[in-house]
Amino acid sequence: MHSTKFHVSCRIDYDIRPSATMLFNVRASNGRGQNVLSEKLTISPELRSEVIETGPGGNRFDRVKTGDAKSLTLRYEAEVESVPLLLNPEHLRKVPPAQLDPAQLPFLMPSRYCQSDRLARFAWQKFGNIEDAYDQVLKITDWIQDNVEYVSGTTTSATSAYDTVTECVGVCRDFAHLGIALCRALTIPARYFTGYAWNLQPPDFHACFEAYIGNRWVLFDPTRLASPNALVRIGAGRDAADVSVCTTFGIASCIRQDVQCTALDDKLMALTGDALRQTAISVDHETMP
Amino acid sequence: MHSTKFHVSCRIDYDIRPSATMLFNVRASNGRGQNVLSEKLTISPELRSEVIETGPGGNRFDRVKTGDAKSLTLRYEAEVESVPLLLNPEHLRKVPPAQLDPAQLPFLMPSRYCQSDRLARFAWQKFGNIEDAYDQVLKITDWIQDNVEYVSGTTTSATSAYDTVTECVGVCRDFAHLGIALCRALTIPARYFTGYAWNLQPPDFHACFEAYIGNRWVLFDPTRLASPNALVRIGAGRDAADVSVCTTFGIASCIRQDVQCTALDDKLMALTGDALRQTAISVDHETMP
Amino acid sequence: MHSTKFHVSCRIDYDIRPSATMLFNVRASNGRGQNVLSEKLTISPELRSEVIETGPGGNRFDRVKTGDAKSLTLRYEAEVESVPLLLNPEHLRKVPPAQLDPAQLPFLMPSRYCQSDRLARFAWQKFGNIEDAYDQVLKITDWIQDNVEYVSGTTTSATSAYDTVTECVGVCRDFAHLGIALCRALTIPARYFTGYAWNLQPPDFHACFEAYIGNRWVLFDPTRLASPNALVRIGAGRDAADVSVCTTFGIASCIRQDVQCTALDDKLMALTGDALRQTAISVDHETMP
Amino acid sequence: MHSTKFHVSCRIDYDIRPSATMLFNVRASNGRGQNVLSEKLTISPELRSEVIETGPGGNRFDRVKTGDAKSLTLRYEAEVESVPLLLNPEHLRKVPPAQLDPAQLPFLMPSRYCQSDRLARFAWQKFGNIEDAYDQVLKITDWIQDNVEYVSGTTTSATSAYDTVTECVGVCRDFAHLGIALCRALTIPARYFTGYAWNLQPPDFHACFEAYIGNRWVLFDPTRLASPNALVRIGAGRDAADVSVCTTFGIASCIRQDVQCTALDDKLMALTGDALRQTAISVDHETMP
Repeated sequence: MHSTKFHVSCRIDYDIRPSATMLFNVRASNGRGQNVLSEKLTISPELRSEVIETGPGGNRFDRVKTGDAKSLTLRYEAEVESVPLLLNPEHLRKVPPAQLDPAQLPFLMPSRYCQSDRLARFAWQKFGNIEDAYDQVLKITDWIQDNVEYVSGTTTSATSAYDTVTECVGVCRDFAHLGIALCRALTIPARYFTGYAWNLQPPDFHACFEAYIGNRWVLFDPTRLASPNALVRIGAGRDAADVSVCTTFGIASCIRQDVQCTALDDKLMALTGDALRQTAISVDHETMP
Repeated sequence: MHSTKFHVSCRIDYDIRPSATMLFNVRASNGRGQNVLSEKLTISPELRSEVIETGPGGNRFDRVKTGDAKSLTLRYEAEVESVPLLLNPEHLRKVPPAQLDPAQLPFLMPSRYCQSDRLARFAWQKFGNIEDAYDQVLKITDWIQDNVEYVSGTTTSATSAYDTVTECVGVCRDFAHLGIALCRALTIPARYFTGYAWNLQPPDFHACFEAYIGNRWVLFDPTRLASPNALVRIGAGRDAADVSVCTTFGIASCIRQDVQCTALDDKLMALTGDALRQTAISVDHETMP
Repeated sequence: MHSTKFHVSCRIDYDIRPSATMLFNVRASNGRGQNVLSEKLTISPELRSEVIETGPGGNRFDRVKTGDAKSLTLRYEAEVESVPLLLNPEHLRKVPPAQLDPAQLPFLMPSRYCQSDRLARFAWQKFGNIEDAYDQVLKITDWIQDNVEYVSGTTTSATSAYDTVTECVGVCRDFAHLGIALCRALTIPARYFTGYAWNLQPPDFHACFEAYIGNRWVLFDPTRLASPNALVRIGAGRDAADVSVCTTFGIASCIRQDVQCTALDDKLMALTGDALRQTAISVDHETMP
Repeated sequence: MHSTKFHVSCRIDYDIRPSATMLFNVRASNGRGQNVLSEKLTISPELRSEVIETGPGGNRFDRVKTGDAKSLTLRYEAEVESVPLLLNPEHLRKVPPAQLDPAQLPFLMPSRYCQSDRLARFAWQKFGNIEDAYDQVLKITDWIQDNVEYVSGTTTSATSAYDTVTECVGVCRDFAHLGIALCRALTIPARYFTGYAWNLQPPDFHACFEAYIGNRWVLFDPTRLASPNALVRIGAGRDAADVSVCTTFGIASCIRQDVQCTALDDKLMALTGDALRQTAISVDHETMP
């Protein structure tokens, strides 16, 4: 069990109309395979805020009342130790619905951006006859990689897996939603993962997904732009609706954003491509009984 | 605080293909304003099953492995005491997003059948200038009642609030989804309610919704086919995806269904119509600190 | 150039509310490769009606004012000679958009049920690198056959190609819409074909599509339930919206329908499957200069 | 019958990939109420092009093969005399479907961006009980004006009337599509109108719609940004798919666009607002027998 230290940071500037409440989701999650060694989050101007911990990934939100402020800058930086589990895919058997823990059931259901109900025939046709669950999810990510083109600016916050499977274009968020929808359609629980990604070009927040197999949440990146063992988790949820970088109740617009993630370890061996056929990665240490 | 006793029952017959797992959601929930005095659930033929308790309404699911069975009959009956809270609407102030408990936050987010994000402008235009939160939700139910026609068989399990708001037709499930989507768009947490309804014609399972105002989950029925104080809760969830009567992993089709709900109390005064402008009803006793 | 004679007939019963106008599209089209030798159409009760000829396939509509009638029975029978052209696929080159006759341009544009604009990437990925136009359309029909399941009752009049490509299920109408949308996305004009089909099981009206290649409208049936040289054309249009069996302005519901198509020729050699890779069929004799 | 002279012009610059075919729709239409007194269209670099006349509004398209060109500039200017008909709304009775000329029937059917079939209940609920056809369409434009916000950049080329009716935001194209869909749902033929608009701020191509009442195509602008009697028609079609400013077969992107429309007449009295309740305007002189 190797651990890697990362330095992550972001800075986001917003224009806001008075009296908004903003819910930020930028802190690295703490525990279950990831330790926040130090962190600092500042809001300028100084505003009343509180940290809320909730959700399946121990997501930590900063809730801020903006009052009269017309602009807001959020800065976050942290040193985080990640301890990804390297797993043997052969041990990652499918957990049949009859044996799933109740905590996983919500991740089998369709959600706003992952209409697994409408993708069921498609998923079974393409991937239904693959015996092994890990292989099934790998094939899903291969299919997404082969069929969906990554093009910035082609999709919006209304785009869902139902669109992406046909329109064949999108960004990391869309790739993740499609992966999730296809897994759920095959009765594999799947959830949305947001995080900081080492070596991501251009630097940005990243989204990928976790599938629940072998009683583990195993991490997959259908964009192949990041390595599952070189990610720092921010949060997990049913889909992007649960773990947006910023959910605004009121009106605010992001006018600038910088995101950084550097490994503090020279020796980080990022696993990609074929290496992931031999080694599966989970960044959630929690197991179900 | 009045209580009413109900006798509820259902019988559902399914044709099934071998090796399905079925997740039934028909048991009356127990606790927080409702007490199951006695109950009996049988599956014929006898099959391995277990009760799972999960979700925000203390939903109790029966998970059944069907093995070789080609058909299955589920029978349930229970005697349930419901203790609805009668509340003064004047005390039911909106809980602003900045003060919501983290447990309510998921019910502000868009979900599979309640795309509140895409209904935001519509909701604010129609209901945005209503001061009082209880009145706002009442007006939403009035609008649905005035604009959506209740016609059996017009919608499918793929129909969502985004469709119903335009197609103006549906059943209780669709009415509830639209109510939820509009509430969430206005930053009022809302969740899907399923239950047994006294005096429902024709008898069936019923769906309506709860909105979180005044730190209470207040019950609303936009179909006006049932009274909020004459319902027995089965479950609560983000939308119908979470609390289907039956979620099948595999293939099964319902071929017959009977549902009954009778009040064991002669004096049940069902509140409907204008009475609900004076008295709000909650069937969830839990309050947030 | 062989000709075949068919006897076609239909009987349709409707319940109607007073004062509807109904536009029937059941007559075999006359001319351009098909000759109506005799025909008889009756409406009971006797109502004012007129025949309208319009549209790209010489569609003939019967427009009927129903007045006070509460029910209506339409009966049609005809003897029709069809003279399908058997063409050598090698001569059917793609007509590039720069050389298309203006009359074909509308059949390149997206329509209600054929959102070719949203299927463009998908179409180019799957079929973009196939050189030969006839082969390209054959591959489209193969793909539909392999990926879409024919199941009666799974779709509605709102279902479009954008749904079918993902939901992978439908009836002849849905198969045709998907074929059309994919052709148009590849800049091959395509139109919806409705007709009577010899040997169709169960007997019904049939839908398939024509693609414009080699300056001919070549007929394709992605359901493979009928043979392109054993069809009697009723009409052609942009999609099903243009050539419904019955378009009602008012309220009417079909309560019974019988459709028949028999070949009056013993020797009809229906072309199907691999035979269509050697021989293309057009039932529209008109050519552009 | 007054006539007004306008000077219209546009310049559009494109980046293109080799071997595209572009179909431009920028020429003022000629005839039936509008006379092109002089015009000049140039393409730089000089490329093979031809003028195609087609469609219900006498649309004139310039079809251009781009060959090896990597960029293209289209310049058009024209002097156009428009002779709008001023009509008395009282004479504009609804033409019932039973009396419509076949040429109008396609404009009753749903199209890519105008899903009148899915808006039928909505349309009848809101506008079904208005007796007078002209008033009905005015009320539709009022409703759109009151409920849909004009915000540039909020919609894409995939946005349709089905979206706009719920999302309540869009540009002239979206306003027109919604107007058309609602008219067709009420069995009033409606078509998409594109043109140059006098005094439009900011200057741009404009879209509105024509409804067929009183045997005339009467012009309506639900954005209220232009006056029906101060427009120069470019074309008419089922919806924007038929009459895009530029349809590209291949890949091209517009990088700059200037549009101008000036009245050469000092005395132009643009009719807007309440004046249109007294006077209807048609810019298509053709009448059906």
